[in-house]
Amino acid sequence: MGYVSFTSDYQQGCHPAILRRMVEGNMECHAGYGADDVCESARGRIREACACPSAAVHFLAGGTQANMVVLDALLAPWEGVVAATSGHVSVHEAGAIEHGGHKVIELSGELGKLTAKKVEACAASWETDDNRDHMVQPGVVYISQPSEYGTLYSRMELEAISHVCHEHGMRLYVDGARLAYALGCPANDVTLPDLARLADAFYIGGTKCGALLGEAVVFPNPAICPRFFTQMKQHGALLAKSWLVGMQFDVLFEGELYERVGRAAIVAADRMRELLAAQGYRLVFGSPTNQVFVELSDDGVSRLAERVGYSFWEKSDTDHAIVRLATSWATTEADLDALAAALDEIGH
Amino acid sequence: MGYVSFTSDYQQGCHPAILRRMVEGNMECHAGYGADDVCESARGRIREACACPSAAVHFLAGGTQANMVVLDALLAPWEGVVAATSGHVSVHEAGAIEHGGHKVIELSGELGKLTAKKVEACAASWETDDNRDHMVQPGVVYISQPSEYGTLYSRMELEAISHVCHEHGMRLYVDGARLAYALGCPANDVTLPDLARLADAFYIGGTKCGALLGEAVVFPNPAICPRFFTQMKQHGALLAKSWLVGMQFDVLFEGELYERVGRAAIVAADRMRELLAAQGYRLVFGSPTNQVFVELSDDGVSRLAERVGYSFWEKSDTDHAIVRLATSWATTEADLDALAAALDEIGH
Amino acid sequence: MGYVSFTSDYQQGCHPAILRRMVEGNMECHAGYGADDVCESARGRIREACACPSAAVHFLAGGTQANMVVLDALLAPWEGVVAATSGHVSVHEAGAIEHGGHKVIELSGELGKLTAKKVEACAASWETDDNRDHMVQPGVVYISQPSEYGTLYSRMELEAISHVCHEHGMRLYVDGARLAYALGCPANDVTLPDLARLADAFYIGGTKCGALLGEAVVFPNPAICPRFFTQMKQHGALLAKSWLVGMQFDVLFEGELYERVGRAAIVAADRMRELLAAQGYRLVFGSPTNQVFVELSDDGVSRLAERVGYSFWEKSDTDHAIVRLATSWATTEADLDALAAALDEIGH
Amino acid sequence: MGYVSFTSDYQQGCHPAILRRMVEGNMECHAGYGADDVCESARGRIREACACPSAAVHFLAGGTQANMVVLDALLAPWEGVVAATSGHVSVHEAGAIEHGGHKVIELSGELGKLTAKKVEACAASWETDDNRDHMVQPGVVYISQPSEYGTLYSRMELEAISHVCHEHGMRLYVDGARLAYALGCPANDVTLPDLARLADAFYIGGTKCGALLGEAVVFPNPAICPRFFTQMKQHGALLAKSWLVGMQFDVLFEGELYERVGRAAIVAADRMRELLAAQGYRLVFGSPTNQVFVELSDDGVSRLAERVGYSFWEKSDTDHAIVRLATSWATTEADLDALAAALDEIGH
Repeated sequence: MGYVSFTSDYQQGCHPAILRRMVEGNMECHAGYGADDVCESARGRIREACACPSAAVHFLAGGTQANMVVLDALLAPWEGVVAATSGHVSVHEAGAIEHGGHKVIELSGELGKLTAKKVEACAASWETDDNRDHMVQPGVVYISQPSEYGTLYSRMELEAISHVCHEHGMRLYVDGARLAYALGCPANDVTLPDLARLADAFYIGGTKCGALLGEAVVFPNPAICPRFFTQMKQHGALLAKSWLVGMQFDVLFEGELYERVGRAAIVAADRMRELLAAQGYRLVFGSPTNQVFVELSDDGVSRLAERVGYSFWEKSDTDHAIVRLATSWATTEADLDALAAALDEIGH
Repeated sequence: MGYVSFTSDYQQGCHPAILRRMVEGNMECHAGYGADDVCESARGRIREACACPSAAVHFLAGGTQANMVVLDALLAPWEGVVAATSGHVSVHEAGAIEHGGHKVIELSGELGKLTAKKVEACAASWETDDNRDHMVQPGVVYISQPSEYGTLYSRMELEAISHVCHEHGMRLYVDGARLAYALGCPANDVTLPDLARLADAFYIGGTKCGALLGEAVVFPNPAICPRFFTQMKQHGALLAKSWLVGMQFDVLFEGELYERVGRAAIVAADRMRELLAAQGYRLVFGSPTNQVFVELSDDGVSRLAERVGYSFWEKSDTDHAIVRLATSWATTEADLDALAAALDEIGH
Repeated sequence: MGYVSFTSDYQQGCHPAILRRMVEGNMECHAGYGADDVCESARGRIREACACPSAAVHFLAGGTQANMVVLDALLAPWEGVVAATSGHVSVHEAGAIEHGGHKVIELSGELGKLTAKKVEACAASWETDDNRDHMVQPGVVYISQPSEYGTLYSRMELEAISHVCHEHGMRLYVDGARLAYALGCPANDVTLPDLARLADAFYIGGTKCGALLGEAVVFPNPAICPRFFTQMKQHGALLAKSWLVGMQFDVLFEGELYERVGRAAIVAADRMRELLAAQGYRLVFGSPTNQVFVELSDDGVSRLAERVGYSFWEKSDTDHAIVRLATSWATTEADLDALAAALDEIGH
Repeated sequence: MGYVSFTSDYQQGCHPAILRRMVEGNMECHAGYGADDVCESARGRIREACACPSAAVHFLAGGTQANMVVLDALLAPWEGVVAATSGHVSVHEAGAIEHGGHKVIELSGELGKLTAKKVEACAASWETDDNRDHMVQPGVVYISQPSEYGTLYSRMELEAISHVCHEHGMRLYVDGARLAYALGCPANDVTLPDLARLADAFYIGGTKCGALLGEAVVFPNPAICPRFFTQMKQHGALLAKSWLVGMQFDVLFEGELYERVGRAAIVAADRMRELLAAQGYRLVFGSPTNQVFVELSDDGVSRLAERVGYSFWEKSDTDHAIVRLATSWATTEADLDALAAALDEIGH
């Protein structure tokens, strides 16, 4: 009996096109710390894809690192970052934001998403509090697209949040760890130029979206963080061989590969959702992206575990739980067939 | 028409007995940084009052400072402090705890208080989470006695919280900014020896309890923070003239003055509660200590403001608000008479 | 046989004029956190003494605290503070500056003083280094007046340092823990208006200069630190009863008491220097202020210790050491007579 | 006319054997965050190479990051790290160590190296200072093998430093960014088992030693840092695909490739030294490893720049400068021939 893993979208190496380029370029000689031609080419492609010719683009190694350095750079010492309680910065970064000296001001999310209304209430609450000078000021709003629940912000929602942020002197930062899976999703109407227009900073995820590793941080207006390079160094986030990440983004942003990588995973996820629904599994959260959430009985979870790799999400009641199955750029038809077979055998 | 202020319990200087001692001792010559005889005497009295002969006692200038240094000293880098959302460390210290690198893990309180059950659920949630190594570990539980709502933990409640903390490898820290007003309250059954037995650290508030300024941090088991002196210095919290604070505590803990200071304020608060109730004001939160919370119409708040100093607490609905009136060691009969007169005149 | 202590200038309470005011004002009712009339009056007097009507003035409890908060507020995250290796921030604050995230860039001083030339070389070295984006940028220059060696910057020296700082985009911060002892010294030609004109921030020391405790931080141009109040809170440095410190400065800056307090200590120190010289002791460092440094044989140090309180400074060679004797506003003729008697008896 | 670059040892991709393994393993499915078989295999090989079966081994992305996380994990809040003024942590990490809250206690080095004597004097100075509780305690000693000047600690020197550290309650940490170039150098007598025996932590550099990127941190006694995994996460240093680095170290520690990679660079550097000496260039610092330091006239530097990539090191006098040429695992005979040709043409 086979076993197939949908535990995460960062289980394998990189897209073959990237691997090819890395093999070909292995003995090329590059300047260090991002001052090389490959990074410059990748920056050019990203600026073009974002329709933002003046953007600053920096290459880092991972998502928590990107969040940590960007937020530390965007926040004044007396400011905190507003995030959903389910946000990655709130719960799954071992306190990296607080380690940098900043409070995460947690708001309850709706399936992983903040609303403009809640953000506005948070800002207004601080502004009108007599004791506000004794309190952490909301300085940046953190959202993730897609969210940790696989859900998407619509362009209208993003515009509303961006508007509220700027009305209240806050900046908007978008965590795009899985951005390819938003961009490649038919349900999505937020483009890279939208992000560049509405956010003050965002990152385009590579590690979970076809690259070996790496994330591209984008500041549409570089003046917002004039010394980001040094701040990367200060946080141990400046790669000597930045070109390693630059090269991968250069490939991903040549001929829209990045979006195609995402699209393939969505096609796979859609087929997975059909398979599961056909078997009577209860899909939850309404995620249209590459993360598929299913509710099972505890017994069902145990049986699933024998054949399928998944991530445990949370208990939903005393004898049921929610698990996550993630597709990726690397998911094959054979993987889905194996899932179908496994589901058949273990029953519901 | 008169005006009388109940805005806070730190509006005036110090208890006459303290003032007398400071005047008498003004030209005495003391060693610096707490290595003097007066501090040593005060430490001895506090140890005795706590029935804890081996306790370490340190003198600091203020409450936020005490919380900041103690929590930074008690927490490992990967730990956070559990507190009520209304806790002083959660909301009114401008992010001092996060500035020190630690997350405040906020739990909803009940009239300012945490319950052993909620603390246990928080600890268990971390312990049983597959991702706990990516998460902030609850390391210390912070409570305040009395709480920010003027409410009191009973000895039984405190024992339950202390038990849960130690069962789960956490430490318990009690913020006693207004501890005199607990100790002097008939409704209170938690003594200083109880605190020394149940908490891993606590501070005995002076600034709001009869001293000019100063707080006495107590570690029943000093081994928990072997280098607290240096950590005070590193946080800018080591007073050159520590004896200034030591001298005040030496007076406060001679002949139970500390408790008597609190008792007087409770007597005044009780009379205030009677006055208010007699006038038909709605008392809220059930605080038995020196902070009296009243709900008024917005219009009533405006009228009150002309004659009485208070602290705005929060809006309770669209056209009502809650305000706080605080008595202290310095509240006089005349103050309460003035309040009664003012209430008569402004009506309800 | 008597004993007399010159261990430090913070061994006693406060100048009688201050004590009188504190006794008189003990039951006055004040707003919290520095928003009271007494603080406002003190700020007015300090602004006037500094000939700087727009200065922001904040009251803190101690010198290390003032340095910590001011430097954290003045420095960008990628900047460090330049100081002499003997500077208080370099060596005697238990790493408070580094705890706030900033490097102390240490330059060798000359009897405790930096020179404009060394500061310029430091700035130029960073500016011309190919790797400067991987290095801490010198952002603020820290000096103390008088220095830790009791020496004074002349107006010309201060102007030169200030000029270099501003030429190179740095700010100048002056630690005035013992400023009264500079202002009251005949050898001094740097006035408070000079400090306000040349420095971007400085503090006027109270703890060592006649106050019970407290320091007054002055920002000639408040725009340099727009949220200093909140940053004080965040560092645990905001006193609930700020008026306690404000009241003392209000007295110190009424009728030039501050300078007179310093002057008295200098007169005492000058007489002490005469006594010591007359006995053949070797005075070192050329300090003209209230700190008197003497070199003795190790044996001489032991004999001195029996009769006189001093601070050990450093070993000067294998069998000699330098000790410090400090006068203060509280030093009396009788103290000096006791010193003379002790010196007579113990011999040289 | 050709151009050949010896600017650094991190200009190219990775050793062909590593590239081969990455290509072969690209579609393999791995657990995240280092909990995979490949990391486990690499850890096993490293433990064996270090003759330290109980060592903890962690894989990180870069050297500054490794230094930052390890030192933050090893140091108590009141401790600082002792390093040479030329140490990477002292000067070229943009204040990463101070950002983590710790002072770098800088001692003057001798060609990049600390001596046991200086380390001992530093420890003793703190221990015997009356004010030590107001000072940063030396907690860890940082050295790099080879040093930033390409020089090597002998086993005897390392033993002496290790001994002093442990005598004085300090820990020893060795930065091995270029460790392969020590291990592969005939002049070296310090083995990996020596490091594991003498140091409390060290890292085996990959980025500059044949890997695409990555460093392996080794704690011979894991109990010294029980929560290092979470601390990596908190510093943004935990790679989702840790196996990417693990896989490279698995190859590097199969059949002593790591040492052979270093050996090849030393052979190239030795030939380079011969070429330079033959042309009359003045070699400085006596580096026997892969970094070759030459002194040239400023004019000579300009001429060199047209044909050869180098790193500017420092001005040695008004019209001379020192430059660094680095060989690596990737340096070819052709590169050295090109250098020889260039030197011939530009003259001396």
